[in-house]
Amino acid sequence: MRVTDTDLALAAALAEAAGAAIRPFYRAEYGLETKADTSPVTLADRAAEGAMRALIERAFPTDAIIGEEYGVKEGTSGRAWVLDPIDGTRAFISGRPIFGTLIGLVIEGWPMLGVIDQPILQERWVGVMGRPTLFNGRPAQTRRCPDLAKALLATTSPALFDDSQLHAFEHLDGAVLSTVLGGDCYNYACVASGWLDVVVEAGLKLHDFAALVPVVEGAGGRMCDWQGDPLTADSAGKVVAAGDPARIEEILEALACRGH
Amino acid sequence: MRVTDTDLALAAALAEAAGAAIRPFYRAEYGLETKADTSPVTLADRAAEGAMRALIERAFPTDAIIGEEYGVKEGTSGRAWVLDPIDGTRAFISGRPIFGTLIGLVIEGWPMLGVIDQPILQERWVGVMGRPTLFNGRPAQTRRCPDLAKALLATTSPALFDDSQLHAFEHLDGAVLSTVLGGDCYNYACVASGWLDVVVEAGLKLHDFAALVPVVEGAGGRMCDWQGDPLTADSAGKVVAAGDPARIEEILEALACRGH
Repeated sequence: MRVTDTDLALAAALAEAAGAAIRPFYRAEYGLETKADTSPVTLADRAAEGAMRALIERAFPTDAIIGEEYGVKEGTSGRAWVLDPIDGTRAFISGRPIFGTLIGLVIEGWPMLGVIDQPILQERWVGVMGRPTLFNGRPAQTRRCPDLAKALLATTSPALFDDSQLHAFEHLDGAVLSTVLGGDCYNYACVASGWLDVVVEAGLKLHDFAALVPVVEGAGGRMCDWQGDPLTADSAGKVVAAGDPARIEEILEALACRGH
Repeated sequence: MRVTDTDLALAAALAEAAGAAIRPFYRAEYGLETKADTSPVTLADRAAEGAMRALIERAFPTDAIIGEEYGVKEGTSGRAWVLDPIDGTRAFISGRPIFGTLIGLVIEGWPMLGVIDQPILQERWVGVMGRPTLFNGRPAQTRRCPDLAKALLATTSPALFDDSQLHAFEHLDGAVLSTVLGGDCYNYACVASGWLDVVVEAGLKLHDFAALVPVVEGAGGRMCDWQGDPLTADSAGKVVAAGDPARIEEILEALACRGH
């Protein structure tokens, strides 16, 4: 089963619908409400996911839907749309336009189509396995990184690692030129466009990474888990994205805290 | 000595000139050059600071200029323009539009005028001591924060703290709702606009914070060092920005690792 033009058109429509739902809540008055169930980010999340689910159900009623807010709708087609309306909640509520809407299409367990959409900056990365990734309609390409010591590394927060993961990450951090924090899904988009070399994270769920894989790999990069295995729905959430696949082994060795 | 309309016009012209110098280098091809003296960020930094210095020297030849790239030009007027062409170098080189150009005017040792300019997003915060801060020409205002436990805290990177500072920061981190990393000067702009509640950093130099103080304070917030003293050219670089001045004592107590 392959990704069709109809799938691509739907993915674009989903991103548009999510953006329209999210924008009114960005930099809006939050007042004092910070309860999880009434916060603006939750309202924006729900509005965006609800809009996307309605479009999918109309277009492909037998596809499964896996969403962060509204859970799993089982399907019978072997296809699952994986949605994270706002990846980068903290960036969103801080007024930083580097969060993203993630839309993934997983076919027979494999992420085949991915969209990273930044609705404030009107930036959209679309990846399809086996095709070049597009950034706002133009090909995106990762950059070569001949020397890990000159690499630019990103991770959202060291606080998301457990102790042994943090130790591994610090080992890699010491092997690269510089590390930038924050960024969430936007970091993977930046890898796809050749502005960053490496992203390493842990604790990612399927809805966090399903959309990222086709974007990064279609741009010439590689994504895998910390053992080098492909990311699937069963992956444990330890994610590596490298713009230059030639550096993957060194990155994995550093994360394993072995010399190289 | 007060900030005049001529000063404000010059500050705007400086921001325009810096932005024009910086934009061509943003998301440009970096190739493999990462040496400090030839990197695109350095080229952008120098082009922007050079353009700003030329404008200041023409308008106010007796004012001092303190720039990150080209150092100190002594003056005789008691006024010093403090320039950081790209605050948030890592964000800039990662393709994240949340770095900023900082322009401060320090009069008799006190930061009196400050500009935080984001040249990619065309966002500009202008603060003058004793006047309302403007965000793209409209008043910006910090938000109230009646409960520190519901505050949103930001810092660029915990790696910028020494061990005792990190311990203090973690104490504050445990007292707030959530902490977002990365951001550099953009965090202070977000405090001024009421999207963030607190920023805590260490190791900031005069050119990092001179522009921030009028922006945050003109929007209703407060900036001080970790002892609660005003930030001056002689401050040790440990900086607190709070949107709600009523929370300053609790923040300082948490940083001192005392209960409250």
